[in-house]
Amino acid sequence: MSLRGRFGGPADEAFQRFSSSMEVDLRMAAEEIAASKAHATMLGEVGVLTAEEAARLVEGLDAVGRELADGTYRPGDALEDVHMAVEARLVGTLGDLGRKLHTARSRNDQVATDVRLWLKRRAAELDAALAALVCSLLDRVEADGRTLMPGYTHLQRGQPILLGHHLLAHAWPLVRDRGRLADAVARLDECPLGACALAGTTHPIDRRRTAELLGFARPVANAMDAVAARDHEQEVAAACAILMTHLSRQAEELVLWSSAEMRFVRLGEGFATGSSIMPQKRNPDAAELVRGKAARVHGDLVALLALVKNLPLAYNRDLQEDREPLFHAVETAIDSCRLMAGVWQTLDVAADRFEAELAGDFSLATELADLLVEEGVPFREAHEAVGALVRRLDDAGRNLSGIDLATLRAAHAAFPDHALECLDPRRAIERRVSLGGTAWSEVERQVADLRDGLA
Amino acid sequence: MSLRGRFGGPADEAFQRFSSSMEVDLRMAAEEIAASKAHATMLGEVGVLTAEEAARLVEGLDAVGRELADGTYRPGDALEDVHMAVEARLVGTLGDLGRKLHTARSRNDQVATDVRLWLKRRAAELDAALAALVCSLLDRVEADGRTLMPGYTHLQRGQPILLGHHLLAHAWPLVRDRGRLADAVARLDECPLGACALAGTTHPIDRRRTAELLGFARPVANAMDAVAARDHEQEVAAACAILMTHLSRQAEELVLWSSAEMRFVRLGEGFATGSSIMPQKRNPDAAELVRGKAARVHGDLVALLALVKNLPLAYNRDLQEDREPLFHAVETAIDSCRLMAGVWQTLDVAADRFEAELAGDFSLATELADLLVEEGVPFREAHEAVGALVRRLDDAGRNLSGIDLATLRAAHAAFPDHALECLDPRRAIERRVSLGGTAWSEVERQVADLRDGLA
Amino acid sequence: MSLRGRFGGPADEAFQRFSSSMEVDLRMAAEEIAASKAHATMLGEVGVLTAEEAARLVEGLDAVGRELADGTYRPGDALEDVHMAVEARLVGTLGDLGRKLHTARSRNDQVATDVRLWLKRRAAELDAALAALVCSLLDRVEADGRTLMPGYTHLQRGQPILLGHHLLAHAWPLVRDRGRLADAVARLDECPLGACALAGTTHPIDRRRTAELLGFARPVANAMDAVAARDHEQEVAAACAILMTHLSRQAEELVLWSSAEMRFVRLGEGFATGSSIMPQKRNPDAAELVRGKAARVHGDLVALLALVKNLPLAYNRDLQEDREPLFHAVETAIDSCRLMAGVWQTLDVAADRFEAELAGDFSLATELADLLVEEGVPFREAHEAVGALVRRLDDAGRNLSGIDLATLRAAHAAFPDHALECLDPRRAIERRVSLGGTAWSEVERQVADLRDGLA
Amino acid sequence: MSLRGRFGGPADEAFQRFSSSMEVDLRMAAEEIAASKAHATMLGEVGVLTAEEAARLVEGLDAVGRELADGTYRPGDALEDVHMAVEARLVGTLGDLGRKLHTARSRNDQVATDVRLWLKRRAAELDAALAALVCSLLDRVEADGRTLMPGYTHLQRGQPILLGHHLLAHAWPLVRDRGRLADAVARLDECPLGACALAGTTHPIDRRRTAELLGFARPVANAMDAVAARDHEQEVAAACAILMTHLSRQAEELVLWSSAEMRFVRLGEGFATGSSIMPQKRNPDAAELVRGKAARVHGDLVALLALVKNLPLAYNRDLQEDREPLFHAVETAIDSCRLMAGVWQTLDVAADRFEAELAGDFSLATELADLLVEEGVPFREAHEAVGALVRRLDDAGRNLSGIDLATLRAAHAAFPDHALECLDPRRAIERRVSLGGTAWSEVERQVADLRDGLA
Repeated sequence: MSLRGRFGGPADEAFQRFSSSMEVDLRMAAEEIAASKAHATMLGEVGVLTAEEAARLVEGLDAVGRELADGTYRPGDALEDVHMAVEARLVGTLGDLGRKLHTARSRNDQVATDVRLWLKRRAAELDAALAALVCSLLDRVEADGRTLMPGYTHLQRGQPILLGHHLLAHAWPLVRDRGRLADAVARLDECPLGACALAGTTHPIDRRRTAELLGFARPVANAMDAVAARDHEQEVAAACAILMTHLSRQAEELVLWSSAEMRFVRLGEGFATGSSIMPQKRNPDAAELVRGKAARVHGDLVALLALVKNLPLAYNRDLQEDREPLFHAVETAIDSCRLMAGVWQTLDVAADRFEAELAGDFSLATELADLLVEEGVPFREAHEAVGALVRRLDDAGRNLSGIDLATLRAAHAAFPDHALECLDPRRAIERRVSLGGTAWSEVERQVADLRDGLA
Repeated sequence: MSLRGRFGGPADEAFQRFSSSMEVDLRMAAEEIAASKAHATMLGEVGVLTAEEAARLVEGLDAVGRELADGTYRPGDALEDVHMAVEARLVGTLGDLGRKLHTARSRNDQVATDVRLWLKRRAAELDAALAALVCSLLDRVEADGRTLMPGYTHLQRGQPILLGHHLLAHAWPLVRDRGRLADAVARLDECPLGACALAGTTHPIDRRRTAELLGFARPVANAMDAVAARDHEQEVAAACAILMTHLSRQAEELVLWSSAEMRFVRLGEGFATGSSIMPQKRNPDAAELVRGKAARVHGDLVALLALVKNLPLAYNRDLQEDREPLFHAVETAIDSCRLMAGVWQTLDVAADRFEAELAGDFSLATELADLLVEEGVPFREAHEAVGALVRRLDDAGRNLSGIDLATLRAAHAAFPDHALECLDPRRAIERRVSLGGTAWSEVERQVADLRDGLA
Repeated sequence: MSLRGRFGGPADEAFQRFSSSMEVDLRMAAEEIAASKAHATMLGEVGVLTAEEAARLVEGLDAVGRELADGTYRPGDALEDVHMAVEARLVGTLGDLGRKLHTARSRNDQVATDVRLWLKRRAAELDAALAALVCSLLDRVEADGRTLMPGYTHLQRGQPILLGHHLLAHAWPLVRDRGRLADAVARLDECPLGACALAGTTHPIDRRRTAELLGFARPVANAMDAVAARDHEQEVAAACAILMTHLSRQAEELVLWSSAEMRFVRLGEGFATGSSIMPQKRNPDAAELVRGKAARVHGDLVALLALVKNLPLAYNRDLQEDREPLFHAVETAIDSCRLMAGVWQTLDVAADRFEAELAGDFSLATELADLLVEEGVPFREAHEAVGALVRRLDDAGRNLSGIDLATLRAAHAAFPDHALECLDPRRAIERRVSLGGTAWSEVERQVADLRDGLA
Repeated sequence: MSLRGRFGGPADEAFQRFSSSMEVDLRMAAEEIAASKAHATMLGEVGVLTAEEAARLVEGLDAVGRELADGTYRPGDALEDVHMAVEARLVGTLGDLGRKLHTARSRNDQVATDVRLWLKRRAAELDAALAALVCSLLDRVEADGRTLMPGYTHLQRGQPILLGHHLLAHAWPLVRDRGRLADAVARLDECPLGACALAGTTHPIDRRRTAELLGFARPVANAMDAVAARDHEQEVAAACAILMTHLSRQAEELVLWSSAEMRFVRLGEGFATGSSIMPQKRNPDAAELVRGKAARVHGDLVALLALVKNLPLAYNRDLQEDREPLFHAVETAIDSCRLMAGVWQTLDVAADRFEAELAGDFSLATELADLLVEEGVPFREAHEAVGALVRRLDDAGRNLSGIDLATLRAAHAAFPDHALECLDPRRAIERRVSLGGTAWSEVERQVADLRDGLA
């Protein structure tokens, strides 16, 4: 079994290893078998093969599939790729009939089909993993969401918020990640099989039927586009890179919150590790690894973009290098989502620590400024007056706890009698009922909306 | 006008320049004015401002907008960004009333709103530019699409195809690019305004109304997500990077086709340049520049991904660096699409050269192999027989033109009497009527479908 | 003045704008003048021009240089680039003599020369900025380096260290950054001028002399390589990207240390900013911006790599897109180093806060484990015993302060009588005198070595 | 053997797989053994271990090394990494003595040491592969370098050159690649071992001795920098990315030159492949794959940069993700250099085709312009006159062959009697004796210089 009829001699051995995609290809062995079966079935239906030939090919392909799945058949690098590996084995068992399977197809459309099938299967897993991760966050909101915590910008405390408000800010991006993935899958849900090398075929094939048998929405409309396009791979990788960036932000916060200085959370023991030299360490390794994996997926995307840039149509062998970064990006995203779901589920949340941190800082300064605005003071003037007050207090080693009305009024005469009331963080939170604000009612409403979306 | 009430002294001057985003910000001055007007109108409607205050603010904002548009008002770096620049000017004309505009908003949600408005406006331009580029390709298909040409894989001639078939393989990816852009825009079509710093506000604002006034589909659901998220920017940049990769493939082919060796096309004089030392040169500069621009947009995407990775919620100043790469990516995509449309429209296609290249090569070898298959020879056996024939001819300095039946039958006994008929490239093309094949009927059908999609 | 003699009509106007590099080119106007003067001088010396012609060209070039520097001469996009702009002006003043300057050169070698001259000039500035930053860190070590602080791994406290030890871990990478830059500059210190388009020239030029006049170490050895190579740009950009990654790590720590939870430092007021809504905020903006700029420079490097990949020799117009990312990378690195130097110089270090954090945690657990090892206990056994002790104490809400000898011995019988002595952090630090350890003697030695390197 | 003494339970199983680096780590098993032996030897020399203990550890480590090398010992993921794997096996054979090996080191400095040792070993292989590739190019220059060919810019023919001139333009960048690699290796040639977790150790170790035993130039100066730094990895990866970009340019040209339109070369049969459907194809797969591999290495570099950005000191678990992209980049560079050397060695160069292409085009137009300059015509005027001539000829379907003196003089009166002589390409080439020009004398001189550099 060889495509080297045109050549006098064998391939250079080092080149053979360099050019083999067997190892990564075998991860889509199931897709190769499925696509070949659909092709054989269609060829039988349209009369290119007899019904009996088609049936024997399908049977033979099932057998090869089983052998690949259970490891009985382990093709080596010399066969180059999974397509040749399957065909070689088929010819081994069925003889000339095996050779007929390659009618009206080429490796170019085969690999394009297999990758799309693989992407559809794995994207469904990724979507489920994302949904489960959203679910873990919502469970956590329902369990601990009423906990007060400092809201940060610039890693500086800004205003008090609910932990639930914060966790939802991690959940919504994942919903968009699901949308991006779904859009990408809908766009790639077209079957390249039967495009052949680049020009279609003279055989009376039925590409709509093959597409249908494989569960694709439709065939790719242009045979050359079918074998040359890789934008769907870049799109999926971009969705994964964006998603991993979201996970890196969750992970960053888990690392921060796990620090001795914050001590807001502790990762479940299943997701932390110790040190070989410092016995007391409980390192948030799972979160750190997820950040590291995000960097890797950024690299995968860059590889996929650089791969295709400046390539003329149609197929070029460069494109073989697409699968490792693509598969790595998707599988890393799946594993990372699952891991993060486990991390959130088993997280030990120190509600007292979150809330303790709110005392004794300036988080409520905005409340004072807002109060002045309510009293008719222009916003900027209010802001400046409170800023100056904060500066004076801070220079004196004091903060807003224990401040009295006279001090407030020295800062701005418009502070009303009830001014001190606004220095209660829970009150400050519960008054923020604007749409999407941190009040519990808004958190609850979002949880309901998100649950609806998951259902 | 300053946010430094908390501070004793001014910012370091070099830091002020380093941290100013004024130059890039001014490109979204129109969006800042529109968003501020909508905010003022809403504040008036809900009673935070009086109707008269709101009306005067709207009027004042219009005036500032005009001054920014015509260059009468040129804010310097000391004002940091467009938000401060507009407000400073407003306070200059309206006094304290100008200061009231900042009620129930912060720079965090302002910038998020402006960028989304900018993206919606520019994405519409990009979509139109993409549509026009598809249209240019279709016009070219209708004008020159029946021209025969060698179809390439690995930059080696594979099978004869129609130029129309090839051009459509460049058109379909652009249709997907439009889809990607539309999906991205639909996902980002949510209004952050009123999210304030990260927690919402105590003022009785109506975020749905602001969203409606600005033409957004809805408000962003969570205030923290509203100010912290940048995935929509990454998604648009990824769509641009993928799109530019498509253009780089078109450009690569235009460069190849313009070479002295192919001479299939010449770029219109408006899109080519000469050499400072070689007077005969007609360089396909427009195409080369588009390839170069694609590299830049890849870099923009990487910057946007790296920017956000590992950032805790909510806003961090790092995010200010998002606009330059984002705006560059989108504007480069628009300019490049327009340029390529011009290139295709003015392209000088040498139909005779395309077709001349088909004579005297082995492009029709596949026809011979297919013929054997039709005669019942297993595909692989047919392939090997024809491969061996090609090798013998090539070694003898011959090719398929002028071959006789006897030679064919020496290669494989199953060649039928009409075997030589299949060595006509146009016949080979017109027999490829499988869905998406290179036959003119398939090309025509696709053009009609694509025209429908544009309408 | 035009290179379009070969063409019948003008360039498309949008293409003209798209293809102009004038704006970025003008940043190397001084280099263009210098290179042209050296070329004219050499042409005069070898007799291609008369001495008087050469002298008049040099004079004319000086005049154009002054006009460009003071803004009297502002060339528009129609002239395409700085090379044409200078020549056009020269012809305007000197007539035909101006046209003679272009003998034995082309735009290809001109731009290559200008960029290398620019890089040498700016790299020297970057090196100085790096040296000044190292110096700022060393000053800080001398001022505050004996301050005790928790040493972190995984953002968890590991062992007590000196602040000086930590700051030096930021200084050494910058020394390597200087080395990388110096190596890159030494490698690019070759003059392309006289390579002409790609093949050299028939004129009897002296490329060694031109190189000497411009201060280059030598001419580029091969004329084609001279105009086609861009690896020196990628190398400088890579050095900048690595350097910026170092700055991002410094910046990350400044952000962390500025947090309310750590409060180890406060950025000088010149380098921090406030909030438009939260008046108490003192945001470490300078540090955040440096992180963001690092992302941008990563993008610049990617653009420069993607630009050149798959380009055939020699010059291709794609390469015009090299200057914006290259210049941005280098200038951002210079500005960022300067900014960080200012940040370290003006940093307010809260020595008491650093040290307060050391009490009441488990940072000294390693000391206990090491003590057991000194008593002959195998390391792993010691580690496990202390780990179990830490777990018990932590579960009981206790830590190592106030622990007694009996408790220690219950954890492992081998603890000696003086075991409690090792729970003094300063003692733990000062005993770490292994080469590069955290003891002050080691810190001092490194400061001296680093000062030597700066001198 | 476990670091989980601090924990009550085991790690989550999926997390264990996610966090294991065993597979990639085993590629540096030899380095782990070597580093451990050096550490044991030094501990014995300074008296932390007895001489006999040290000797038994060294012996035991040798045994583990053999077991790992021959596959007798296959550690599973549960042991996390190669460091734990070696230690576990050592304890299995030596009992408590095995546990003593971990005195005065930590996994942080171990992994840093192993990676640097690996890099030094593999960089030497890469350097040799680069040297061999340069050598292949020089052999090719000596064999075929006098072949005439069109010199291209913008993929348009510019001036005739020698193939040798062109090939040298591919050789010189590789010399710089070797320089970059050597500089990177010199910079990373420092031993981290003994830095321990981040602070050094109280044990009286001799880090200079360990460095010496392992062949490092010196120890890393600061213990924290020793475990936290990854810039040396980024630098090596950047050198590989730049190098692969150079190979991509060679590969691009081999693909172009192999096209049916150019037919300048054919890849040796060992490095080309056929098609599954087009039997005549001889695809330049090796070259295409090298282009694809370049894209992958770009991705590796991006991953390594993104990994470290924004990481606080010292070690963070993210850094575990460094090895896969780093090892991939280096190994891909080695394999690709070796492959390209084979490609050049076995390349079938069609000298006649290169030269045939020179007839009948405008490549010598520059000669005509230069001739006018020699006659005293200003360069720009000469260029314009010849450009106009080219335009007229081209419009008339003619070129420079067969042109007569009268036609030349109609274009510009200054053409001398011997003008037609300059239309001989070999003469045009051999007159370009300026330093680095395309004349054979310059090619020969460069070959000699490059051979000197290899020796």
